[in-house]
Formats: sequence, structure tokens, C-alpha cells
Amino acid sequence: MAEEKLPTRAEDFSEWYNQLVLKAQLADYAPVRGCMVVRPYGWALWENITAALDRRFKATGHQNVAFPMLIPRSFIDKEKHHVEGFSPELAVVTIGGGEELAEPLVIRPTSETIIGHMWSKWIQSYRDLPVLMNQWNSVVRWELRTKLFLRTLEFYWQEGHTAHATREEAEFETRQMLDIYTDFAVSDAAIPVIPGKKSDAEKFAGADTTFSIEAMMGDGKALQAGTSHFLGQNFAQAFEVRYLDQNGQLQHCWTTSWGLSTRFIGAIIMVHGDDQGLIMPPKLAPIQVVIVPIYKTDEEKSSVLDAARKLNAELVKAGIRVKLDEREGQSAGWKFNDWEMRGVPVRVELGPKDVAKQAAVLARRDKPGREGKVSAPLADLPVTTEKLLAEVQQALHDKALNFRKSNTHDTKNIEELKRAVENGFALASWCGSADCEAKIKEETRATMRCIPLEQEGQAGECIACGKPAPERAVFARAY
Amino acid sequence: MAEEKLPTRAEDFSEWYNQLVLKAQLADYAPVRGCMVVRPYGWALWENITAALDRRFKATGHQNVAFPMLIPRSFIDKEKHHVEGFSPELAVVTIGGGEELAEPLVIRPTSETIIGHMWSKWIQSYRDLPVLMNQWNSVVRWELRTKLFLRTLEFYWQEGHTAHATREEAEFETRQMLDIYTDFAVSDAAIPVIPGKKSDAEKFAGADTTFSIEAMMGDGKALQAGTSHFLGQNFAQAFEVRYLDQNGQLQHCWTTSWGLSTRFIGAIIMVHGDDQGLIMPPKLAPIQVVIVPIYKTDEEKSSVLDAARKLNAELVKAGIRVKLDEREGQSAGWKFNDWEMRGVPVRVELGPKDVAKQAAVLARRDKPGREGKVSAPLADLPVTTEKLLAEVQQALHDKALNFRKSNTHDTKNIEELKRAVENGFALASWCGSADCEAKIKEETRATMRCIPLEQEGQAGECIACGKPAPERAVFARAY
Repeated sequence: MAEEKLPTRAEDFSEWYNQLVLKAQLADYAPVRGCMVVRPYGWALWENITAALDRRFKATGHQNVAFPMLIPRSFIDKEKHHVEGFSPELAVVTIGGGEELAEPLVIRPTSETIIGHMWSKWIQSYRDLPVLMNQWNSVVRWELRTKLFLRTLEFYWQEGHTAHATREEAEFETRQMLDIYTDFAVSDAAIPVIPGKKSDAEKFAGADTTFSIEAMMGDGKALQAGTSHFLGQNFAQAFEVRYLDQNGQLQHCWTTSWGLSTRFIGAIIMVHGDDQGLIMPPKLAPIQVVIVPIYKTDEEKSSVLDAARKLNAELVKAGIRVKLDEREGQSAGWKFNDWEMRGVPVRVELGPKDVAKQAAVLARRDKPGREGKVSAPLADLPVTTEKLLAEVQQALHDKALNFRKSNTHDTKNIEELKRAVENGFALASWCGSADCEAKIKEETRATMRCIPLEQEGQAGECIACGKPAPERAVFARAY
Repeated sequence: MAEEKLPTRAEDFSEWYNQLVLKAQLADYAPVRGCMVVRPYGWALWENITAALDRRFKATGHQNVAFPMLIPRSFIDKEKHHVEGFSPELAVVTIGGGEELAEPLVIRPTSETIIGHMWSKWIQSYRDLPVLMNQWNSVVRWELRTKLFLRTLEFYWQEGHTAHATREEAEFETRQMLDIYTDFAVSDAAIPVIPGKKSDAEKFAGADTTFSIEAMMGDGKALQAGTSHFLGQNFAQAFEVRYLDQNGQLQHCWTTSWGLSTRFIGAIIMVHGDDQGLIMPPKLAPIQVVIVPIYKTDEEKSSVLDAARKLNAELVKAGIRVKLDEREGQSAGWKFNDWEMRGVPVRVELGPKDVAKQAAVLARRDKPGREGKVSAPLADLPVTTEKLLAEVQQALHDKALNFRKSNTHDTKNIEELKRAVENGFALASWCGSADCEAKIKEETRATMRCIPLEQEGQAGECIACGKPAPERAVFARAY
């Protein structure tokens, strides 16, 4: 595999992405159109993502649960915006156990409806609130244009669902989970994101308000990397989720939902990757350090492998995810390329001269050539490596942030916006009307990504209609 | 909830089980017949089970992956025993995105077929072997008679799948995974199990040989708690999973699969539970220790809660899964009953007198009354509790093993076997013929559970036909 060269990102970003996902063995195409198989290297990355998020969810009082994948078709119809949003995308089970079903079932496209149904049974009193739940599962949406990780018929995610006594609490929760996504993206994935509010046209079907984190990919396009929805009382009314308050009055709950999916793997690939392949952020990397032994003679092999195995054991003991590449029949150079393509953040090169000096060469994946190399004593390697991983983590974040900054432009009219979104984000004042939003989209093929929570600069006149605009929004072409 | 009394196990074991699952909030019935919702307390138990197994799988070189849930209908037909086994149980998707599908898709009942399909692409050479994979997911089988955890349309499990160059390696793997299940059941779930080989009538559809671990429930019935299959070359031939060996010859792979599901939660409930409710084995318990503060006056409340919170923090620090029950408006006695019903292995009672003495009372869930209580200094509690949890773990195992031994009988004829399986296991010599097996089943409603790997005693004449029997088998009524 490693011999076939990837196209460069400049040549064909989309094809660079498709080939890299296959070549790095993150995922493959399944026999059913639009479905994917996530291979060990891709799933190990997802497991690290889930662990990083799950820790944060549990620390804020959420509990994991499992609602079934099969939902009565009629449930989807109960909330009118929800049914409009999801009806065209459903996978429908009509036969079970060899017989036609009296009522067709759908495979969940998301679980608000079935959760609402169960909550109406479980929630009786204000004492039962808040209910803070999350589930790790997969959902199915019948997408027409698919791309590995970014848009597949079945995808993996977590969906959080909470019910509260008051609007304020539910709004707080919605924002808290957005903050958690932001912190995860920035701190663990080294991806700078813009947290903000979606327009009505772009929000979740059934939500009062949707918030998202938006990231800039290596081609300047946007990717929505996580969403948090304030659902108001929409689902509580549709499914009669009610509680007796402290005065004995029956009230509808206020609910939220929030999700982050295997799309995020696409973001990691497209934010950090370069023409040589993946670059994994150290905190999430399935393999943080690879040790490549270098030798020619049998005698060299024996002493180098001895030292390499000892080093491997010490790095494991230090809690570092390390792999010793002992593959026979491949040159050290071939292995360097292979692990570079797979994005391992730090490579340790260990040859006979290094062993003689009781040292090793450490090479950073994010800095090519001599600039990214240092020699360090073997005895210090657990500490040196830990430090280097932290440096790579920070450097990846800073590089992505600089890239986004230099490809984000203030725009004063639609022509400027159109130019800006050719290879980046446009900031523009927007009056808030759906008509103006639609006009911008039609003329530029860019969508409103979000109204950033942190507004930079002063809003002026709406870029589309010229009326006074309360806020500035981010526009971009998007995945 | 806690006021309604459970039926005793002697009165109605099945109803005791059903009510306990609901009352302890492990799971609930979903709106679709035969599906379940796993609630936070039940899912936390499953998470501890998955962690205990996943650690063992990874330590033996297995990697997690995710194959899609949707499989072309035609795949199921490719292996002739497999299609016979699973055709009647399939859930079929016939509509996607609003349109009738050209080829119907099934929701995986298990993943041998789609994995075989992908392996035929990925595996080329002996260098690619062995392939050692596992996935945590849910599968759907259209069961007619369902029971929470024990048999549901959708259930959660792990399915391991491996491919090997030789029969010997695949056979070794099959037995290794059986050993891992046995070790997990005994060491972590405190459930003594009998590892053994299934008869041809009871084996997995598509396997050459199926091994299982069998456990005795509190009513003397058997539950198959995990299975490991040697699949020979059946799926490799059906899906053309082949490799070039070291001599350049094309060979079919030898494959295995193995699984353990949410059924296992049913086993934990039915092995350890008593008339007061659940008893969780400490190593898997979502909550290992509950602290119940006892007070009457506001002054007492303040000093007791202070001490309880401090103790809680210390137990957390010691790595113990602890909960401090600060619920208002419920008496300490009510809380004792509630946590007993939910099976928390150790309760810490902390009242004003205890605080004055800087001590607390520890009560074991598995020993009722005074016998299970000890007082210990607060300062020692992290150590005392850890020790007590280990004692409870061992005691639960020993009690279950004694129960099984005293309800397992050597039987010399079908009448004896029939009596033995009224409330336990029967050991009987069996010639190995399917006819004899069918005859025993018809006359006693007991099935052959397994031929234990460790044969106790000497096989004699077949209990059904009187011919010489090579081995003794376990017969029982089963879940």
C-alpha cells in the first residue's frame, strides 16, 4: 500500500482525503452503499474520543443508558418539525420473523421520540428532575451523497438527552454541553473551533435553538463538529413529558439534546493532515510513539532489539501508547514513511550507534526533516517523550488556529464574501432574516455556519439587505 | 416503588425476576414488543462487564472494530447452516429514503457474513494472519418469547471474530476465549460456570464446534452465559477468505467467533439475588459502597453529613465506587431497604454516636442482620472496606458453587434425570447420538447443556440407549 503516492492536498483535497482514509486503514467501504467499516486503527481513535468525552459527561452528572434502535414509525410523526426533518431519511423495517409487521418500524435516526415516550412514564415529580442521560450508539439516515466518516448511512455517535424543570436550567445545560465540546475539541483534538448559534434554517428539526462548534478544514471549508440543542417544550408536549411541581401543578419539562459523531474523525484528518498523510493529535492518537529499530547485521539486530524492547517496556510503564515496529522484511525508511502516513506524532529511531551512546533520535511528525529531530539519552526518554508529545499537541493547535485566522476575512458585500469563501471563512454582518440568508447561499454557495458566541468587532449593515444588523455571522462552504 | 414487596423466589421465581429488574431500575419494556430500555443502573453494570472483558481481549492481542448493522439479505444465504439457523429470525429493511430497496437488507443477527466478505478483501497472505477482531454492538433476532435481558429482540453483546492460517491455531483461539469467559465469570462475576462442548443439536448455526460456559440459576435451571465457536473453514469457503501460504499456495482460512451478551446480567441477577432483591458482585457493582447518614436533629445532621462527605471523598480517593445517599424526606430504614433491593454489596451506617466515636458500622449485603455487621474506625475505612468487598466477592462465589454442587445429581436412568432437573442439573452418561439426546429432551424437557471439559467420575452406559458412552454430559432445563 505505502508505495502508491497520495495526491497532494493542493491537487485534489477530496481525493487526498478518500485515499488517505483507506490507505491508513481507518475505514473501508461496506457492501451496502453509503455504509462504512471502521477498521482497528480508526476505531482505536474513536475509543480515545469516546473516553475523553465520556469522562467529561460523567463529571457533569450524566449517566449512560441504552434505548432500542427500533422505533414505531408513528413516533416520528408526533413532533411536526421533527417529522419534516427526518421522514425522507428513514430506513424502515417492514418484515420481522418472516412476517409483515402490522406497524412498520424505523431504525432510529436519533432518539428524541422514544426517549420522550419513556420519560413520560418515568418522570412524575420535580424530585425526578433533572434527568441527565447519554448513549453511545449508531443511527441510520438515508443519505444520498456519502463520504467515509463525514456522511454515512449509519454513523456512530453519542446522543445526550436531558429533561429539566425550568427553561433556565435547560438553557444552561445546552450551553454547558457546547462548552464541553469546545473544550474537548481544543484541548484534546487540538482543533480550534468557533462555538455559536445556528440560524433557523440550519437548526435541528424540532429544536428551538441549536448551537454548534464549527471548525475550518485544510481546504478552508467548514465542518460542523458537534451540536447542542435547546428543545424547549416541543418534545415534552408531543410526548406528554410532565411533572408535578412543588405547588402540585402539572408542568411540561424542558429538554435538550446534544451529539458528536464519527464525523469528528473526518475533522481530525482534514485539520491536521498534510501531503505525507495523517497527523494524530497526541492526546487522541491510538499510537503516540513508534519505535523503529535500525540494523544491518544479526549482531546489530540483537543489541538494537534488546534496547528497543527495554525502551518499549519503559514507555508503556510511563503510560505512553507506544508501538515497537519489529516487522521483518521492511527497511527502516519504508517504516518511517508508513508511520508518517498513519500520523504517529513521535518516532523514536534506534540504531547501533544510538545504543552505543545509550541515546535515541526522536522525530516529530509535525516538523519534517532535521528541524523536528532531537537526540536524547535513553534513560530520560519517558520524560523527554512526554514533553515532546505535549509540544506537538500545542503546535498542532496553534498551526490550525493560525491557518483559520489567516483564511478568515471580514467582508462588506456579497462579492467579497463570495471571494472569501473560495478558500476560507467570511465574517459578515447579517440582519437575521431567512431571506437574506437564502440570498447569500444562492449567490455564493456558502451557508451560515453560526453566529459566534464571542463577537469580534462591531456589526454594521446586513451584507445582503443593508439594514442594521445586530450581529456578525460566519459564512463558509461546508461539509 | 420500594414499598411494594417482591414475590419471594420460592413463590414465583420468574415473577420475582421480572419485578426485580423493573423495581431496581435495571431495565424497562420498550414500546416495540420484545425490546428493552437499559436504564442507568443496568447500563453501569454492563459498562463494568465490558471493561472487564475488553481488558482481557486486548491483553490477548484483539483489536476492536465496527462493521455496519445493515447486511445484504443475500449474504445470510451463503452459508447453508447459517441461513437455516437465522432466516426465521431476521428483521428486514425494505424501504430506505422513501423508496423500496432493490435488494432487501437485514439488521445483523450476528456478523460472520459481512466480516467474511470484508476479510476476503483484506486478507491476502500468511503475513496478514492471524486477524484478531472484536466489536461491541447490538444485534436483532426476532424472538417470540422474550424476557428482559435473557431474550430480547435487540440485545447488546460483543462478538469476536478471528481468522487463522491453521486449524490448530483456530482451535487454540476458540479454547482460549472460552477460558477468558470462564475466568471473567468466576473471578469478576463470582459465578461458577461449567465450560464444555455443545452437542451438534445445540451448536451455533455454521460452527463445526461450539463451546459454552453454563451456570446454574437460583431456581436450578441452566443459563448459557457465553459461547465460543470453532467455525472450521465454513465461512472462509462461503466468502472466499483465502491467503497465500509460505509456499505460494492459496489456502482457505480457519475462523472462530465468540460472544457474551446482556444475558449475562440476567445470570448475575438469578445467581446472586435473594428475596430482598439484587446482590451485586463487588468487582462489577456499579455502586460498591453506599453511605447512609443517620440523624434526627439539625445539629446531628450537620455533623453527620460533614463526616459522611469526608468519608465519601476518602473512599473515592481509594478507588472505591461509593455513593453517599443524601436524599431528604426518606428515613434511614427506607434507604437501607432501597439499597438492599438494589444489591449494593456494602452499606456504611453513620450516626451521631458513630461520629462521636470516629467509627462507622459496615453491613454486608450478603449476610443479613447482626452477623453481617462490624464497626470500624473511620480512619481505617478505605482499607476495611476494600477487604470486606473482597470477602463478599469470595463468599458470593462460594455460596453459588455450593448451591450448584448440592443441586447437581448423578443420574443412572431417565427417571432419575427427570427428577434431578426439576430443580437442578443432572450428570448422565451419553453415547453421543442425536436420537438419544432428542429422546431425553422429549421425556424430561431438559436439554444437553454441555459435555464438561473436566470430566468428573467415570462414564458408563448411555442413559437413553444403554450403549457404552464415552463421556458424561450435563442436562438441565434452561433459559
